[in-house]
Amino acid sequence: MDGSHWLSMRPVAEKLAQNGHKVVVLTAESSLSMNGSDLYTALTYSISYSKEDLVSRLEMFGSDHFTPSYFPGVTITMYNNMQEVFRIYGDVCKSLLSNAELIQNLKDEKFDALMTDPFSLCGTILAEYLDMPTVMFLRGMPCSLDFQAVRSPSPPSYIPRMLTTFTDHMSYSQRVINSLLALVESMACNLLYAPFAHMASEFLHRDVTVWDLFSRASIMLLRFDFVFEFPRPVMPNMIFIGGINCANKKPLNQVETKLVNSSGEHGFVVFSLGSMVSEIPMDKAMDIAEAFRSIPQTVIWRYTGKVPSNLGSNTHLVKWLPQNDLLAHPKARAFITHAGSHGIYEGICNAVPMVMLPLFGDQMDNAKRIESRGAGVTLNVLDMTPEDLINALDSVINKPSYKENIQRLSALHLDRPIHPLDLAVHWVEFVMRHKGAPHLRPAAHDLNWIQYHSLDVFAFLLAVLVTTFFISFKCCTYTCRRCCGRKSRPKSKSKKE
Amino acid sequence: MDGSHWLSMRPVAEKLAQNGHKVVVLTAESSLSMNGSDLYTALTYSISYSKEDLVSRLEMFGSDHFTPSYFPGVTITMYNNMQEVFRIYGDVCKSLLSNAELIQNLKDEKFDALMTDPFSLCGTILAEYLDMPTVMFLRGMPCSLDFQAVRSPSPPSYIPRMLTTFTDHMSYSQRVINSLLALVESMACNLLYAPFAHMASEFLHRDVTVWDLFSRASIMLLRFDFVFEFPRPVMPNMIFIGGINCANKKPLNQVETKLVNSSGEHGFVVFSLGSMVSEIPMDKAMDIAEAFRSIPQTVIWRYTGKVPSNLGSNTHLVKWLPQNDLLAHPKARAFITHAGSHGIYEGICNAVPMVMLPLFGDQMDNAKRIESRGAGVTLNVLDMTPEDLINALDSVINKPSYKENIQRLSALHLDRPIHPLDLAVHWVEFVMRHKGAPHLRPAAHDLNWIQYHSLDVFAFLLAVLVTTFFISFKCCTYTCRRCCGRKSRPKSKSKKE
Repeated sequence: MDGSHWLSMRPVAEKLAQNGHKVVVLTAESSLSMNGSDLYTALTYSISYSKEDLVSRLEMFGSDHFTPSYFPGVTITMYNNMQEVFRIYGDVCKSLLSNAELIQNLKDEKFDALMTDPFSLCGTILAEYLDMPTVMFLRGMPCSLDFQAVRSPSPPSYIPRMLTTFTDHMSYSQRVINSLLALVESMACNLLYAPFAHMASEFLHRDVTVWDLFSRASIMLLRFDFVFEFPRPVMPNMIFIGGINCANKKPLNQVETKLVNSSGEHGFVVFSLGSMVSEIPMDKAMDIAEAFRSIPQTVIWRYTGKVPSNLGSNTHLVKWLPQNDLLAHPKARAFITHAGSHGIYEGICNAVPMVMLPLFGDQMDNAKRIESRGAGVTLNVLDMTPEDLINALDSVINKPSYKENIQRLSALHLDRPIHPLDLAVHWVEFVMRHKGAPHLRPAAHDLNWIQYHSLDVFAFLLAVLVTTFFISFKCCTYTCRRCCGRKSRPKSKSKKE
Repeated sequence: MDGSHWLSMRPVAEKLAQNGHKVVVLTAESSLSMNGSDLYTALTYSISYSKEDLVSRLEMFGSDHFTPSYFPGVTITMYNNMQEVFRIYGDVCKSLLSNAELIQNLKDEKFDALMTDPFSLCGTILAEYLDMPTVMFLRGMPCSLDFQAVRSPSPPSYIPRMLTTFTDHMSYSQRVINSLLALVESMACNLLYAPFAHMASEFLHRDVTVWDLFSRASIMLLRFDFVFEFPRPVMPNMIFIGGINCANKKPLNQVETKLVNSSGEHGFVVFSLGSMVSEIPMDKAMDIAEAFRSIPQTVIWRYTGKVPSNLGSNTHLVKWLPQNDLLAHPKARAFITHAGSHGIYEGICNAVPMVMLPLFGDQMDNAKRIESRGAGVTLNVLDMTPEDLINALDSVINKPSYKENIQRLSALHLDRPIHPLDLAVHWVEFVMRHKGAPHLRPAAHDLNWIQYHSLDVFAFLLAVLVTTFFISFKCCTYTCRRCCGRKSRPKSKSKKE
C-alpha cells in the first residue's frame, strides 16, 4: 500500500531491520511515497502508470471533494472514485503477479512472514501463493470486512457501521439504518473486492473467495485504540497499535523553530488536509485565508496551490510540514485536519484540540469519534463560511472543555505498558518465530454460517418443542374426549366394530 | 478470596507496594493462606469460623471427591458443596460488612482502587459502597458470568460452557447441549449469587442485582491466555495475565537439590493435588504408591496422610513442595496434578507434560484443554488402576509428542512483550491514575436485552416486510380481479348501487 497507508508501516519495517532481520519492501516503480531506505531492501516492479499519472489522478480525486454535490450525486462520485482506486490497485497487482522473475525470486528467498495492508488484497494473494504467515496492518476495512474475517461479533445495536457517522449511542432510527447496513455490508464489499478474488483464483489455479484471502491473517495490527474507537468485542489476534505514527519525533529545523517561537502568547495553529490534498479551489482558499486573518494565532498551512490574495501576515504557507513535531510544540493551540487516522492520532498524542474538515473515506467517522468525546469540532468544508471556521477555532482554543478533553484522551492513550511500535514489531517477530499464531485462530473458522449461528441447533430445539407441544395437546384433547365427550363414543365404538 | 485464589493476587499486591503505593489487604481473622507481609498492611476482621473449622470443612470438601458416586449423586454432592462454600463466603461477607468501625476506617482512607476476586462478591459490594474503581482478578466465573458482565459475546457454537469438558470443536449433539446450557446458565448463576445481591441491597439501601455488581469492573485481569484457553471474542477491558503465578522463582533448598540431583538419568516426577487436597483415602494412596514403585523416575509427592505401606524407595513424601521451582528443574519429567489453573500454568511455563487427575470445579475443563493440545493425559482418580497411572506416565515421559506439544505451548506462552505480573500491575495503576477506565466501557451497558439483540429493530423490519408483502399481494389480487374476473363485476356494481 502506497500513500499515507505506508507512513506507519515504514517505522515497523525499519525497526525490524534494526533488530537484525532482512526486510524486503515490494514497491511499484512509480510509487508516491515508498522511497528506498538504507535499512531495508526495496524490490521494485514496473507498472503501467507513471508517477505523473498517479499524481494527477490523486489531484483529481482530491478536487472532486471540493465540488458541492448532494445525494445521489455525492454517492455516485464516491462510488466512481472507489471504483477508480480499486481499478488502479487491480492493475498494479496484475503487474506484480505477472512478473514471473520477481515472483520466483521471492519464492527462493523463503521469507518467514509477510506484512501487508489488506486495503489492496495483492499482498494477501502473494502470501497465499508463497504460503507465508501473514500479518495484516490496517486502520480498518470498508464494510467491517476485517472484523468479519477474524470472526469478531459486531452487534449492530451499538457498533456503528462505517460511513454512517453514528456514535455507539444510537437513536432507534439510527439503529434501524445501522442494522440494515449490517445486513447488506458483506455483500457490498464482496462486490468491491470480487476482482481480487478472481485474480487470486486465476493466479493460484483454484477457487478463492474474498473471505479466504482476508481470514488468512495470523495477526491483525490495527491502527487504533479505544481512546479513539468505540469499545467493542475484539478477537485475541487483534493487536491495537493506535498512535504508532507518533513514534518518530524529530526536533524542528531553524526556520520552523523561528516561526513557532515568534507566535507570541497566542501560539500557533497547524493546518493540513493530508498527503492527498495539498491544493484546494481558490474561492475556498480565500475563505480560509479570510478566517485566518482574523485570529490572533500564527497559522502554518500546508498548501501548494496559488497564494490567496487576501492571505494575512499571520499565515504561513509551506509545501510540507513536520506535523507531529509541530503539534508536539507547547505553543500549538489547535490542529485543523481532514481527520485522517494518522492526523487524528498525532492530535491525540500531543493533546491538541482539533477542527476537522473531513473529505472522504473514514474521515467523517473519525471526526465524529473525536467530536463525540468533546475534543474537536467538525465543519463541512463545502458549506463553511469564514465565520464558521473562526468560531470553531475560537471554541477549541478558548473553551477549556476542548483542551481538557483532548488532554484526558491523550493521557489515557499514552498510558500503556509498551509503545505501539514495539508492540507491532513484537507481533511480527512472533509470527516469524512461530510460523504464524495458530493458537489464536478461533474454531469459528471451521464452522459454516448456519453452524456458527447455531441455526441447526435451534431448528432442532424448536422441532422438539413443537413436537412435545403437539403430542401434549393431542394427549390432552384425547383424554378430554374420553372423559367428558359423549358424542364421540358411538363413533369410536363403530370404529372398533 | 482466600486459598489458592490469593496465591497469584499476592505478588500483584506486593509489586504495587514496591512501586510506592499504600496497599491494604482485607483479611478474615481465621484466614487459611492470607498471611501478613512486610510490604502491605493487613487489616483483619473477625468471623464466626475458627481456622480449624475452615480446615476441617476443606478436608471434608476434598475427601468428598474421593467417594465414588454417579449421576445424580455426584451432581447433588457438587451442588451441596457449592452451596456450603457460598454459605461460608456469605457469612464471612456479613462479618465484614457489619464491622462498622472497619468500614468507616476504609471510607476515611479514600483509596484509589479496589482489587477483588469476584468469586465471592463481597469486595464488589464494598467497592460499590466506597465508590471505588474496581479491578477484578479471576480465573473465570461459573456460568460465563464474567463474559456476560463485560458484554462479551459467547457464541455457543464454538465456546464450550463450563463443566461440560467440551472443546471448541463440538459434535452436533455437544452443540445442542452447549446451547441449552447457554440458555439457562445465567439463570443458574443468578440463583447462586442471589444472596450477595440481597446482602448488597440491604447494605447499600437500594436494589442491586448480581449483574450490577459484576458489571462495575473497570478492568478484568484474567488468569489465562490463549495458549491454554480456546480463542474467543473478548472485550478491550479484559487483560490476560495467564502464567502470572510463575513469576516468583526461588532456588531449591539443599534437601530438594540433593533429591532431584540423585534422580539420575530418568529424572523425577512431581505430584500434588493442590492446596485443598493433601490427604487421600488409603486404598487410593496405595494404588498410586504401587504405580510409582514400578517407574524408573524419582517421585516427589505432596502428601500429609498416613504413609502407604507399599511406598517404593523412589517415592518421597513431603508436606509441602516448591512446585514451580521443582518443575523448572531440567530433570523434571512429568507433573501429576489436579489440573487447578495455577498448576496447569506452572506446567506450561516450565514445559513439563502432565498427567491430570481433576477433582472438582474448573479442573475437568482445564484438563480437557491441555489434553486437547496433546500435552497431557487425563485420568479419573476414582476409577484409575495402578496400570492406568503407569501407562499415562510412560506416555507423557516417553512419547515425544507430549514433550514437543508442551514445549510448543510453553514457547508460545512465554513469547510476550511484557510479563503478566507487570501487565497486571500496570492496569491496576492505570485504574488508580485515571479513576477507572470508562473509555473501555462498551455502550452495550446502556442497552437492555431487547435493544442489545436488536429485537425491536428486527420486529419493525419484519412488520415493514409483512406489510409490504400484504399490500403488494392485495394490489395484485385486486388488479387480477379487475382485469380477468367477470363474476365479481356484478357484485361491485351492486355495491355501488
